[in-house]
Amino acid sequence: MAAVDKLADIQRLYTEVKTSLKRNIVSDATGKAIHDFALLSLKFLQTDCTRIDLKSLVPGKSYSTFARNDFPTLVARPANSSLFDPDFGAVSAHWTAWWRGEIAPAELAKMSYTIALAPCLVMELFDRQNKKGPATYFECLIGHVFAKSIGVNPRKQAVLPIEGRNVRMTMDFLFDMGANVRHIHLPVKMSTRERVVQAWAHQRLLDAVFGIGTYKGIMVLFSETKLDVKKREVVEICVPDQWLAYQVHLARMDRIYYFDIPERYAALTAQFPELIPIKNFGEFFLEKAAVLAT
Amino acid sequence: MAAVDKLADIQRLYTEVKTSLKRNIVSDATGKAIHDFALLSLKFLQTDCTRIDLKSLVPGKSYSTFARNDFPTLVARPANSSLFDPDFGAVSAHWTAWWRGEIAPAELAKMSYTIALAPCLVMELFDRQNKKGPATYFECLIGHVFAKSIGVNPRKQAVLPIEGRNVRMTMDFLFDMGANVRHIHLPVKMSTRERVVQAWAHQRLLDAVFGIGTYKGIMVLFSETKLDVKKREVVEICVPDQWLAYQVHLARMDRIYYFDIPERYAALTAQFPELIPIKNFGEFFLEKAAVLAT
Repeated sequence: MAAVDKLADIQRLYTEVKTSLKRNIVSDATGKAIHDFALLSLKFLQTDCTRIDLKSLVPGKSYSTFARNDFPTLVARPANSSLFDPDFGAVSAHWTAWWRGEIAPAELAKMSYTIALAPCLVMELFDRQNKKGPATYFECLIGHVFAKSIGVNPRKQAVLPIEGRNVRMTMDFLFDMGANVRHIHLPVKMSTRERVVQAWAHQRLLDAVFGIGTYKGIMVLFSETKLDVKKREVVEICVPDQWLAYQVHLARMDRIYYFDIPERYAALTAQFPELIPIKNFGEFFLEKAAVLAT
Repeated sequence: MAAVDKLADIQRLYTEVKTSLKRNIVSDATGKAIHDFALLSLKFLQTDCTRIDLKSLVPGKSYSTFARNDFPTLVARPANSSLFDPDFGAVSAHWTAWWRGEIAPAELAKMSYTIALAPCLVMELFDRQNKKGPATYFECLIGHVFAKSIGVNPRKQAVLPIEGRNVRMTMDFLFDMGANVRHIHLPVKMSTRERVVQAWAHQRLLDAVFGIGTYKGIMVLFSETKLDVKKREVVEICVPDQWLAYQVHLARMDRIYYFDIPERYAALTAQFPELIPIKNFGEFFLEKAAVLAT
């Protein structure tokens, strides 16, 4: 079966993720749809693609990517070699275990990195310009994982009473946690670039309208890698000075999770551990209780 | 001479605008480069293009656009029929008069609208996807007009002392006005969409670091029209609720100028005249003294 003939199956499973998530973000059907889509993607990468080593200009990290065997000139985005797990069986087992509530801490970082990235790689291998597909899938995945982890379904819309109007603003996810704990504002982005200021602006609106501390800001980001397709070199694009400015003068994010923490943001956290609290997303599973505590 | 053969001349004049502006934003050479580029564009629209009426879904406004005679299927963005002035000689004379300091109030709105839009229309007629060219030209034009009007050259970089670091942030334009009047922060965009939140975020950083009132925020925008290419219908995309939220809870823009004020923002100004002060850009020339007064 040619690679392009498998596209219909891949697209069908992607649609299934979106529709079952819309129906019920924490349902068994949604968990299964994400699993099936990610695992079919991983299988496609193994059977119909070739792994290609990239030149990493990021100290201490190595990256590779994939190209379709029938279209070898087009390469997907970089995958961190120490986080991407090509072991189909292991990834499937760890997702299922997490989903059942059996936590296996050591494997969560690799499992979640692979589940998040594999479908994005495949979507890019059929359309390099497809930015929306990967972004939407990543948002679906994080919404599901958070909703399932904390047992609350999110909203997308904030209603802000301003100057006598009920101003409606669409945000990534808002979780209402009841009267005794802080609500959660969860911005989710594959990478930030300049657009990230929106997340801090939303947090500030929530702080201003409902009072600082009512909504805890938790930002979930994938990575900041950039691939030079011709040279096959990977760099990380970071703006630590801007983050410092936003975090001090726009609004304070309580926690920032990355799937692949960029080197320069890790350095910023080392310098300002209280102010810029960046962690690996795998740790979310282990510190869920602390994240939710008021 | 075929239309495509004129592209080289148009591109050369566009490059001339950018390079002379970089050399000296207020020089005679920059003023002449803008004039020549805009007027050559207007001439091209008249001699090599056909004017096409569009169906306006915006009450009280009518729009048309242009297509190249040798490539009639590709149409440019909408031009407000009551503001776009196809009279080559009149536009040239009014720009030159303004540039010499001889103000002709009644004509400023049409002249500036036409000088701003004509090159954007032509750039689009050679490449519909070219968003950067029009955006850059508009920024050049507004930078020149402001710098010349107020007699001060702008900077692009703010240096914000935060947590012991000198945080450098690139903004559209900053004008240092000396000790006795307020400085100016001038965000410039062809249209806003979601990206506009950045302008309010920058204003808030300036307010937080230097004190509210140190920098007056003056936002200059072109229009919010959107063309449905197939149906040839024009609508305006507005988010008045978001503007209200940003203006009340992120930072306060002192003035917002549009070249073609969107209907729903005009309604917002009618409801909140103090809070949302939107004016036609033509008025800037007449109220320059009030804008600059502390």
